[in-house]
Amino acid sequence: MKQGLGALAAGVASGAATRAGAVEPPAVAPSMKAPGAGMSEYGSPATYEAKVTRTFIRSQPNTTGSGASRTPLESLDGMLTPSGLHFERHHSGVPDIDPAQHRVLVHGLVKRPLIFSIDALLRYPMVSRIHFLECAGNSQLLYQPAPPNLTAGQTHGLVSCSEWTGVPLRLLLEEAGADPTAPWILAEGADAAAMSRSIPMAKAMDDAILALFQNGERLRPENGYPVRLFLPGWEGNMSVKWLRRLKLVAAPVMTKDETSRYTDLQSDGKSLMFTYPMEVKSVITRPSHGMTLPGAGLHQISGIAWSGHGTIRKVEVSTDGGKTWREAPLVAPVLPRALTRFRLPWKWDGAATVLKSRATDDTGTIQPERETFIGEHGNNAIFHYNGIQAWSVAANGEVKHVYA
Amino acid sequence: MKQGLGALAAGVASGAATRAGAVEPPAVAPSMKAPGAGMSEYGSPATYEAKVTRTFIRSQPNTTGSGASRTPLESLDGMLTPSGLHFERHHSGVPDIDPAQHRVLVHGLVKRPLIFSIDALLRYPMVSRIHFLECAGNSQLLYQPAPPNLTAGQTHGLVSCSEWTGVPLRLLLEEAGADPTAPWILAEGADAAAMSRSIPMAKAMDDAILALFQNGERLRPENGYPVRLFLPGWEGNMSVKWLRRLKLVAAPVMTKDETSRYTDLQSDGKSLMFTYPMEVKSVITRPSHGMTLPGAGLHQISGIAWSGHGTIRKVEVSTDGGKTWREAPLVAPVLPRALTRFRLPWKWDGAATVLKSRATDDTGTIQPERETFIGEHGNNAIFHYNGIQAWSVAANGEVKHVYA
Repeated sequence: MKQGLGALAAGVASGAATRAGAVEPPAVAPSMKAPGAGMSEYGSPATYEAKVTRTFIRSQPNTTGSGASRTPLESLDGMLTPSGLHFERHHSGVPDIDPAQHRVLVHGLVKRPLIFSIDALLRYPMVSRIHFLECAGNSQLLYQPAPPNLTAGQTHGLVSCSEWTGVPLRLLLEEAGADPTAPWILAEGADAAAMSRSIPMAKAMDDAILALFQNGERLRPENGYPVRLFLPGWEGNMSVKWLRRLKLVAAPVMTKDETSRYTDLQSDGKSLMFTYPMEVKSVITRPSHGMTLPGAGLHQISGIAWSGHGTIRKVEVSTDGGKTWREAPLVAPVLPRALTRFRLPWKWDGAATVLKSRATDDTGTIQPERETFIGEHGNNAIFHYNGIQAWSVAANGEVKHVYA
Repeated sequence: MKQGLGALAAGVASGAATRAGAVEPPAVAPSMKAPGAGMSEYGSPATYEAKVTRTFIRSQPNTTGSGASRTPLESLDGMLTPSGLHFERHHSGVPDIDPAQHRVLVHGLVKRPLIFSIDALLRYPMVSRIHFLECAGNSQLLYQPAPPNLTAGQTHGLVSCSEWTGVPLRLLLEEAGADPTAPWILAEGADAAAMSRSIPMAKAMDDAILALFQNGERLRPENGYPVRLFLPGWEGNMSVKWLRRLKLVAAPVMTKDETSRYTDLQSDGKSLMFTYPMEVKSVITRPSHGMTLPGAGLHQISGIAWSGHGTIRKVEVSTDGGKTWREAPLVAPVLPRALTRFRLPWKWDGAATVLKSRATDDTGTIQPERETFIGEHGNNAIFHYNGIQAWSVAANGEVKHVYA
């Protein structure tokens, strides 16, 4: 492996590195001629990276109300998403909540209804886990008959990955004396949409947490500050942000958010509802739509894979439109319900071709071709699309979104 | 374990949660009465968290020149540090470097001197790894005869943990045709201090990377944008930021940064030099100096441990000043040369006591008591302090820094 990578790197040399001249020592750089900027209390990205932002499709930044912003996947690498670039999906904007005033009520079918302040929650045992969060509507443009001419982030950027730290919900339910026969929990947010979903008790008692920290620091406002529900692997809207109450109930509440939205209209005219886990999926982020390869030769393919059902077991990459596949090494640590980075060197011969990636999770489920997916589900829905993503590479190096 | 945590949580109940009244449904919160704020291109922490900043000891924010800012460890949880709160240590401020103009030169004892642009580096195979970075001078105030009355972040906050993504240095050295008998590499930064260190070839060929991404996005300016050397587990200054050249040489260069600084004066008057790996270490971040426990009862102890020599194998916690120790569960994934979070519930009886944590790494090395450490090394040095950290808890709940 060491030898292989070395040889591949040497292969890149002619195109990437430049042979140095006889100049020595190298000229003093402008940045070395005067002291630089001072330290800061809280840092920001380089000004040269100002274009790396969340992107907006059918939504406008800085306007209130319902909308979404997407993670610029094509500009990132690794498994984590910086919190400033975590995707957003709000149903009525980002509420301003004073943590000292905020309370979480646990009531309904419980022996002891309880109220938790944020300070109280901070006194409970906590867990930390690295997990992806994906909006049910991620990649919804791929249901359309023609490929959208958009970047990887614009089509697939309603997925992000963070370290989430918080209190296991099970502990709070046990303390409240949850009725073991209560099968459902209503979770309600303190935003102006009162975003509400019905959560099965089994998930609540399994791996659900009340998240207080994201990537080490307290939650960001757009991710539910001061506290959100977090349901690993399940569609994002169920991880109710700005959580204000959990009511144990005998049946799903059929809230507006689970009837008018977040149901999946199939080709036979029936709708699937309560489709919770996000499916096994992957996308090549580099190269991807909008980039131009500088020429034939060695390139590095990089992408992400994830599954709400478990851990990514395998990612295969095709550089010939799906005729042949090669397994791409996964970057450790490969964690359950987390983004998993894969990378594969690719020697491009300069001819037009199509790149694809195909993920398999540890339940054995394989990401389907788009044609197969649409054949099974139709294209009336807007949620839970997980077809294989294809990027065409033209002879001039241009990379574009294509259905293939 | 599930039962134990449940029982412990129930124990917290009397102190933490409040019994809810008969009000139902709960009053509509102010945040639910009007749409919230809009989405943003790049997010920021909540205004209510404005006090959670990097802290400055003997340095002033926003002034140029040499100084350090520290991660507020006591306000964080989990294993990661958000990039905005990653510690800073600059020798002449943060240079403003246009990535399009920046070059890295590899020269000296090589067959083919090479120049790499950032675009060229981005074409190489990359690796991603979660690693801590610790300044050699972290915890230097603990060499002083009296305990500093400072927070965990102010004393221990020159350590942070990120996901670093970049090109294995080995690949570039092989491509340049590094002389296998060249035992050292001069690494030089493009800041006004031309920060320079001599790097042993063995480390360069082992796990050194040229880092381009931090926590998913491109490096922050204060962490070496557009490219830094990263030497996992070694004292921070050797991971030269704003890297502009690597020169293969026959002997260490004895730069100003490895003679006037970063040597460790011992009690016998001799100095250690080239002390590269950071030692096994831990600190309890909650509760810690400056906090006040609200009363007797169940509390959660949370802290971090790390070792530049490998992986944390065990963290023990004492709640009686070191008389007895209990092993604290480690939060998965436990990764080599990464911060490792430990947590332990603690039932406080309300009497004055002292809390300590003691880390052991997979080489079997155990973090020493302060007295032992000072006995061996004296207190003339300012680098590589790794003694056990003690926090006293008074009967009124006040937590303070203490030597014990």
